[in-house]
Order: sequence, then C-alpha cells, then structure tokens
Amino acid sequence: MEDEVILLNFWPSMFGMRTMIALEEKGVKYEYREEDVANNKSPLLLEMNPIYKKIPVLIHNGKPVCESIIQVQYIDEVWSNKNQLLPSDPYQRAQALFWADFIEKKVFVCGRKTWATKGEELEEAKKDFIEILKTLQSELGDKPYFGGDQFGFVDIVLIGFYSWFPAYQKFGNFSIEPECSKLMVWGKRCMERESVAKSLPESEKVIGYVLRLKKLYGI
Amino acid sequence: MEDEVILLNFWPSMFGMRTMIALEEKGVKYEYREEDVANNKSPLLLEMNPIYKKIPVLIHNGKPVCESIIQVQYIDEVWSNKNQLLPSDPYQRAQALFWADFIEKKVFVCGRKTWATKGEELEEAKKDFIEILKTLQSELGDKPYFGGDQFGFVDIVLIGFYSWFPAYQKFGNFSIEPECSKLMVWGKRCMERESVAKSLPESEKVIGYVLRLKKLYGI
Repeated sequence: MEDEVILLNFWPSMFGMRTMIALEEKGVKYEYREEDVANNKSPLLLEMNPIYKKIPVLIHNGKPVCESIIQVQYIDEVWSNKNQLLPSDPYQRAQALFWADFIEKKVFVCGRKTWATKGEELEEAKKDFIEILKTLQSELGDKPYFGGDQFGFVDIVLIGFYSWFPAYQKFGNFSIEPECSKLMVWGKRCMERESVAKSLPESEKVIGYVLRLKKLYGI
Repeated sequence: MEDEVILLNFWPSMFGMRTMIALEEKGVKYEYREEDVANNKSPLLLEMNPIYKKIPVLIHNGKPVCESIIQVQYIDEVWSNKNQLLPSDPYQRAQALFWADFIEKKVFVCGRKTWATKGEELEEAKKDFIEILKTLQSELGDKPYFGGDQFGFVDIVLIGFYSWFPAYQKFGNFSIEPECSKLMVWGKRCMERESVAKSLPESEKVIGYVLRLKKLYGI
C-alpha cells in the first residue's frame, strides 16, 4: 500500500515551509491542503491537532504529527533512504538540535516585532533581530550550509524566514545585508535548491500578507 | 580511555534534574559541579554555553551539549546499550518529542506564576496550571508511564517539576490533587525509581529556595 501523506498548512507559515522542504527533499508525494486559519479551521485540523489547533499538521496514513521541527525529524526517520537531513553522529545531531531550538526560540518572536511594534519596542526589536542573525551567521561561518557541505536540518529550520526578510526590512525600515551579508548569500544558495524554491512563497506576496495583517490589527 | 562526563548544574533546576536522571538511568559516572548561577557563574560555564550562559551544561570529553531535552536525547544515543529512553519507532518518537515540547512550552512559565504573581494574574495562572496538568494526565491515561510500561523520555522531562509541586501549591494556595490525582500517583511511582529519587531535591528545600527568591524579588 502506498503511503498517504497530507499536509495541512497556510502558505505564509515559515513553519509549514520546513515540512514542505523536507517532504520535497525526500521525494515524498503528498496532498497539500490550504487551511483558512483566521476564519474557518477545518474539522480535520481540529481533530488532528487538538492541543494547539495550529498548522502545519502532517498526516501520515491517518496519523498526525504536529510541530514543524518534529515533522522534519519524523520525515527524516521514516524516509531515511534519501538525503539525510540530520547528522548520524550523536554530537553533531545535538548541535543541530541546539541551533534549531535557538532559531525556534528567537527568530519568529523577534521578527514579528519588526512589523507589529512601534517606537522604542521596534528599535529594540531591530537591534535584537540583527544580533540573532549575526549569531547564526557566526555559527554558519565559512560553510556553505549549517551542517557543512550538505543542505540539512538547520538550513530547513531557518530558510522559511528568508522569504519574510523583505517584509521585516520594509515594515521595520532597516537593512539586514550590511551586517549579515554572508547569511544573505547562504539564503540565496538555499533558494537555488529545488526543494526550497518550490516551498517558499514570493517575498512580494508575504509583504502583501503582512500589510493585510497590519490593517486587520490596526498597526 | 574512559569517558569524562561533567554536569554543570544548580540544584533547584528542574531542567538539570532531567539530565541527572538520564545519566543515572544509563549508569554513567559523572562529576557534578554546582554553579553559583545568581552571583558568580564559572568561567567554564560561560565558555561551554556562550549563547545562553545557563545551566545545565553536559560536558562529554570536553565538548558541551546544552539544553536539557537535547542532553537527554544525546545521552540516550551515546549510551544506547542500557534503558532506552526514547522509543525506536519514528511515530512513537515524534509523539514523545511532541509531549516533551508541550511540557517545555507550558509547565515552567505557568508554574513560575503560581509563586511570582498576585491577584488576577495568579488566579489565572492557577487555573491554567491545572489545565496543563489535566492535559498531561489525559495523555498519561491508564498507563504507568507516559511511554507505556517503561519509564522513559517524557517522564524524565516532566518529573523534575514534581519536586516543585509543593512550592507551587503552598505559595499559590491551591491544590493539585483533587483534579490530578492520577498524575500525582504517576509522580509517586516515578519517585520509587532510584534514578529519580537520587536526582530530585527534597520539596521542603525547594520551598525554602522559593521563599528566598520571593524575598529577593520583593514578591
């Protein structure tokens, strides 16, 4: 019997992008179902993620896996025959998990502030955001990808935010390039990969989405 | 050459307790070094965890692993010959990681509010805390441990908080037992395990520590 794989997602989600990239890397055929997360979550989403009621949800042969980083690990373990995403060495795995966790704790919350706050809070958020990216850039070093020569787990966890960078910069009125040029080169390099190019939305579309959010929240 | 394992920790940390339990479960001999996290972090701590400068840090043959949940996974992978902590099945692993992540996101932050806040915020925190524990209790169901018959990963991630329950209840002036009796039975069951009993502090000592914190912060 062939695997049935369904992804419940909402296109601007940098979390859902991770899962899409991992599925593409493994060559897994899946059904993409767009959710109306703001107004009308599907009964399937509510059933499959009763704890958070959030996308992305990966449904594999009827069984849900929630939380994008866990989905990527799961995909790596189930479809282990192609493009290994996490290193096999326990120490290298721990390091990859550390950086994924760092990204998870820092980038979304701070990135959001670049378009959702004003005044002092915004100024602080921009500084913090650049510091976070500089820390990541320093971890990247001169390697082409976070794990080394191979595109892998940490790249997947971070790259979705790259499609949001133009929105962060436009609405926060700041520029990432001057202090993080190496990280921007890394982003461009990742975008040359089919799995990434297929999974990330156009940055203009993200900008339009953020504009709608700002209007909705009256920011 | 024998493994050199050092744990930088601070005794009340429910995060450090996880790592201690995992090391005990595997029968790993290690050197415990208490850190003065409030006043005088050691140069080794600052060197080994430059990103967060926080305990617990596991140092294995000179190389640091940070973040307690990652440490437990690392320990499980390196000392894989004894007491497997995470399930081997990818789906069961994903479920265990999901619940560990749930505990990580919810229990500490909400638990802290039971002794560090007042008035409405405290009332809300107590309600939330019970809801979080009820969710966990429902996941536990009638199983002796979260993973089933074997003490494992999710138990290790949660049990440290059990030593803080009396402090939460005393300072928050509420009781966990009435709505979460099954979870309390699970806690007692875990405490019968040598690895847990050796790693958790006396609850009275935690109460004394929280009292000092409250004075320090003027709460």
